[in-house]
Amino acid sequence: MTTKPNILLIYTGGTIGMIKDYKTNALKAFDFSQIVDKIPELQQLNCNITSISFDEAIDSSNMNIGYYKDIIEIIEENYTKFEGFVVLTGSDTMAYTSSAISFMLENLQKPIIFTGSQLPIGDLRTDAKENLITSIEVACANKNGVPVISEVCLYFEYKLYRANRTTKISSEQFEAFTSMNFPPLAESGVHLKFNEHLIHQTKNTEQPLVVRKELVEEVVILKLFPGISKLVIESILNIPNLKGIVLETYGSGNAPNSDYFIALLKEAINKGIKIVNVTQCKSGRVMMGHYDTSLLLKEMGVINGRDITTESAIAKLMYLLNKNLSNEAFKKYFESSLRGELTDKYHF
Amino acid sequence: MTTKPNILLIYTGGTIGMIKDYKTNALKAFDFSQIVDKIPELQQLNCNITSISFDEAIDSSNMNIGYYKDIIEIIEENYTKFEGFVVLTGSDTMAYTSSAISFMLENLQKPIIFTGSQLPIGDLRTDAKENLITSIEVACANKNGVPVISEVCLYFEYKLYRANRTTKISSEQFEAFTSMNFPPLAESGVHLKFNEHLIHQTKNTEQPLVVRKELVEEVVILKLFPGISKLVIESILNIPNLKGIVLETYGSGNAPNSDYFIALLKEAINKGIKIVNVTQCKSGRVMMGHYDTSLLLKEMGVINGRDITTESAIAKLMYLLNKNLSNEAFKKYFESSLRGELTDKYHF
Amino acid sequence: MTTKPNILLIYTGGTIGMIKDYKTNALKAFDFSQIVDKIPELQQLNCNITSISFDEAIDSSNMNIGYYKDIIEIIEENYTKFEGFVVLTGSDTMAYTSSAISFMLENLQKPIIFTGSQLPIGDLRTDAKENLITSIEVACANKNGVPVISEVCLYFEYKLYRANRTTKISSEQFEAFTSMNFPPLAESGVHLKFNEHLIHQTKNTEQPLVVRKELVEEVVILKLFPGISKLVIESILNIPNLKGIVLETYGSGNAPNSDYFIALLKEAINKGIKIVNVTQCKSGRVMMGHYDTSLLLKEMGVINGRDITTESAIAKLMYLLNKNLSNEAFKKYFESSLRGELTDKYHF
Amino acid sequence: MTTKPNILLIYTGGTIGMIKDYKTNALKAFDFSQIVDKIPELQQLNCNITSISFDEAIDSSNMNIGYYKDIIEIIEENYTKFEGFVVLTGSDTMAYTSSAISFMLENLQKPIIFTGSQLPIGDLRTDAKENLITSIEVACANKNGVPVISEVCLYFEYKLYRANRTTKISSEQFEAFTSMNFPPLAESGVHLKFNEHLIHQTKNTEQPLVVRKELVEEVVILKLFPGISKLVIESILNIPNLKGIVLETYGSGNAPNSDYFIALLKEAINKGIKIVNVTQCKSGRVMMGHYDTSLLLKEMGVINGRDITTESAIAKLMYLLNKNLSNEAFKKYFESSLRGELTDKYHF
Repeated sequence: MTTKPNILLIYTGGTIGMIKDYKTNALKAFDFSQIVDKIPELQQLNCNITSISFDEAIDSSNMNIGYYKDIIEIIEENYTKFEGFVVLTGSDTMAYTSSAISFMLENLQKPIIFTGSQLPIGDLRTDAKENLITSIEVACANKNGVPVISEVCLYFEYKLYRANRTTKISSEQFEAFTSMNFPPLAESGVHLKFNEHLIHQTKNTEQPLVVRKELVEEVVILKLFPGISKLVIESILNIPNLKGIVLETYGSGNAPNSDYFIALLKEAINKGIKIVNVTQCKSGRVMMGHYDTSLLLKEMGVINGRDITTESAIAKLMYLLNKNLSNEAFKKYFESSLRGELTDKYHF
Repeated sequence: MTTKPNILLIYTGGTIGMIKDYKTNALKAFDFSQIVDKIPELQQLNCNITSISFDEAIDSSNMNIGYYKDIIEIIEENYTKFEGFVVLTGSDTMAYTSSAISFMLENLQKPIIFTGSQLPIGDLRTDAKENLITSIEVACANKNGVPVISEVCLYFEYKLYRANRTTKISSEQFEAFTSMNFPPLAESGVHLKFNEHLIHQTKNTEQPLVVRKELVEEVVILKLFPGISKLVIESILNIPNLKGIVLETYGSGNAPNSDYFIALLKEAINKGIKIVNVTQCKSGRVMMGHYDTSLLLKEMGVINGRDITTESAIAKLMYLLNKNLSNEAFKKYFESSLRGELTDKYHF
Repeated sequence: MTTKPNILLIYTGGTIGMIKDYKTNALKAFDFSQIVDKIPELQQLNCNITSISFDEAIDSSNMNIGYYKDIIEIIEENYTKFEGFVVLTGSDTMAYTSSAISFMLENLQKPIIFTGSQLPIGDLRTDAKENLITSIEVACANKNGVPVISEVCLYFEYKLYRANRTTKISSEQFEAFTSMNFPPLAESGVHLKFNEHLIHQTKNTEQPLVVRKELVEEVVILKLFPGISKLVIESILNIPNLKGIVLETYGSGNAPNSDYFIALLKEAINKGIKIVNVTQCKSGRVMMGHYDTSLLLKEMGVINGRDITTESAIAKLMYLLNKNLSNEAFKKYFESSLRGELTDKYHF
Repeated sequence: MTTKPNILLIYTGGTIGMIKDYKTNALKAFDFSQIVDKIPELQQLNCNITSISFDEAIDSSNMNIGYYKDIIEIIEENYTKFEGFVVLTGSDTMAYTSSAISFMLENLQKPIIFTGSQLPIGDLRTDAKENLITSIEVACANKNGVPVISEVCLYFEYKLYRANRTTKISSEQFEAFTSMNFPPLAESGVHLKFNEHLIHQTKNTEQPLVVRKELVEEVVILKLFPGISKLVIESILNIPNLKGIVLETYGSGNAPNSDYFIALLKEAINKGIKIVNVTQCKSGRVMMGHYDTSLLLKEMGVINGRDITTESAIAKLMYLLNKNLSNEAFKKYFESSLRGELTDKYHF
């Protein structure tokens, strides 16, 4: 009789499972079975690890909605059999992927920890082992049988983040991720310390897991810059069938107030396109109405992304657009925290 | 007879000169003359300050190429009369603007310091005074009559950065800017310390200042995200008259290797569009050929943006596109450091 | 009829009120009345400011127990007349002084904010104004008449700390203080944000303020280093009338386990000297019994300082030694949080 | 025929080679041979590793001058046989030990890299492997046969520091060390980057290594605090045979200017005791004469420790006191950089 938690390790691809192709000097993925061989330490963890891997390991640059669905289906099929899930992907798009997975699962009651590495598991100076081992420890953590974590997280370089709050900030440092608008849920040092007041508390609910596999892909990021021409904006707003736009604005949500810009946005909104105002600043939030230049956006119905990341905004758009909501309901849901992805109340 | 340096203060607009409109709670600009009144300390500085301001103060969200030209022309007209220039703009687009100005001035031999503030000069807890005072001190700094700084810089919250290396990272903290791929040129504490080995050294040259006022505006930022559809990419690449694209890729310059994506990029390049590969990561650089997914980009002629910022890449595109360069020359110039905006040689 | 809060500003001395002596290039203090003149902005704050200053401004290096008493007596006399107190001292010993004041006041229900500056108020690039203005704002902050802060704090360079958690970490940077084992209680940026879950909550109590003016001064800091000789240790432990020692150990509270060292400590404890184990590391805490080398200390009755700072440990020793406690009671009180100065419960 | 560098690994003790004693829950050291077994990755490094260990592993709390000598003698005996040295010690006193070793070796032309870990090598989430592997890589690094590093360094958690600039700042975080007054010599991320302009350049010299094994141990740290009594100071200054004092002062080197304090210090100096002024602040430096309170110290002959650490000051005292220098020569050598341990020239 065992009470060890059962952990499912899902390998989708990424640097963590890569080796060098010495002809091109580029990195190539290999069979996941080799990963387990590479980390004998895994056997020492106080849990039962089962692993499953994508038929073909995918590079994180090739991550897409179809693969999101594959990850979700693996979790769905195995949800009752395991106490926790660790998902390995490339780090390049991990913030996007893990954000999306966080929306696609409603009433989640178990830990899903995304991780990966900057250097391949086979490299000498690798960050892969620590990331993998601690992610599994986090997935196992429980208090009297109740999991400490019951949300989608991302663990990297000693810090456990809420996944839909993360951004890949560095392509070269081991500390590759950051979560500038929300503190880490846990930090790993000599001890592994959870910041309990920040963690989403599992409500003792009978509600079953609901899996939303369908996402709407007709969305785009429109990043503003001084000198952006009318033709460029017009062309993007008129992409056929476009349903949603993440508008990357300046500072606390500011945009030009030139007549043509305002007119083009109004036209798009009138056509039913949802436009979300997200700041280009990694830290801070949109405050529409604070400056003249954001007041107009507010008045015409642009949605306030508050302190959401672009990565999470794209995922939330794809998720909510599938729900056939009224304009009011869409705006209300987008501007509210559904999975802790934004801060909807501020007190100063 | 005086040897005090003459400093020209150019006010274009921005929070630093703003007051609240109590009806809308939004901020509005006011006459620059009030700024000088607000900072009597300026009279204590060991220099002669002359100020000039835009006829109408502009919000940084409305900054555009026309205003770049206005700034440049003020500098050009006054270049021989002043030892240094301090340019006040809104912080929201300051990284874009100051990057552009850095390219538009060739053979620059005098300091041009951009600054601004997060809170209006009239607020009690303002960062405006410190930013302005130290910017002027930096513009005055010289060694035996040779200016310490002879490049375009951005000063904010105790740090002097090379302007074309900066990004606005926070919309709420006083430490609003960062320069993740290049250290500060100076830091202000109890002392003002210059990191001399990092500062561009003025060559004792007879070459006159060359002013490039014309920029090409037919450029766009294409920010990748997992699930971006063929139609979205196609629509953006086919914007009429498009001449340049900043392609915001993943990690160290990776992009999907799907057939249609590759084919669309090739087609655009064949049409003469310049595509620059810049990473979405604020820290780190593009290394094309490192992964499979960036090798293809390299082979088809995508330009390597190395560790340039998106803000600086847009400015450099606008500047170089005006030069009617061959494909080879364009690529060579873009991939080389022209104003210290990227690191073109790495030694590991 | 006014409801503006009344704030008492207590100036004891320090850089914030200094000017240069151009003969020696050293700084000298001047009359406090000049400080108010230097900051006309103070009149704009929504409170009534009364100021009081030491007859002779003291340099923070000369701070001592007598001056602690002077500060305490000013607070005691004015406690009912004011809603909040701002105490200006030199920054050099501010962590020591504010820690001591935190212990000397029992049942405190009002804010006492220590502040100062790295550069004199009269300097152009001074941090004095921002520190002073925001400290007064913090002292005024209330919710429905209940003060937000009801403890002794230290405000410096955008951060409000619990005073007895602070250390002066830098003599040159404006960010001079740190509180490595406890997060800031508030941070100042575009907004002033309180971290409410960290702030000591005023219990709605009828208990009056109790003022403890007497401190025991027969204490010493014994900082260990490899090679410290028996004679040195012996001489320090045998200082006549010594009553308490802050033993600055290594790492998580480790010390040599040589026979003579152990024997000397035992002898001192047997004589009634209280020995508190505090780590030389600015971050982290003592965990006695974790290593062999700290187990012996624990067994002989050395007190566990946990994550207290040296500055706070000295103050707490001086305060508790005056209470004539039994060994057991002394140890129990020292190892418990009295004013939030240490973390007495850890969950891993 | 091989051109692989030969590296000598010297294990003295410390967490890196420890296991748990499950009875006491304390950690105990074990045979070094087990360390090599624990890290099979070492075989993949492109060098020949020879290891040598202390007969009995010592805890870093028990480190002393005798053990310094043991380390020095191992290096001396093997100096010509190896290209680089990696010394493993406990992290608690590593800053003290490595500082001392840096002084004890004159004309050093080879890398000596100290490292260790916060968690035992046998732990799952250990930092030991990365620290050890990268330290060996650093010890191997060369350009055309000339070693990149030819000084005593400390490597910990992705950063290579000049050893005599380090302090252990945290007992719990993997980033345990800091070097606040001098930047890292190298940083490890996806790449290992050396900051070449900071590294001590090996002069192409014929001068042989000189080994100074003898240190003077009659030294003490006197850490000031407000309220420190005359009796305490007097007792410490009168420790029999005392030859040197590291006086830990406030801020930029300030101390009380009370008559008795000044008189006691003068008396000590007249007896021939060397007193070095070092600041309690981890960052910044002593500037004697800046304030009244440090002017007196300067005038009476107190030595200016500038920006040296306490750890390094103790080592330098122990080293220089053995040289029988005149007062003037002692002061001159102490105030100058001998091994890069302090910054002796400032330009503002």
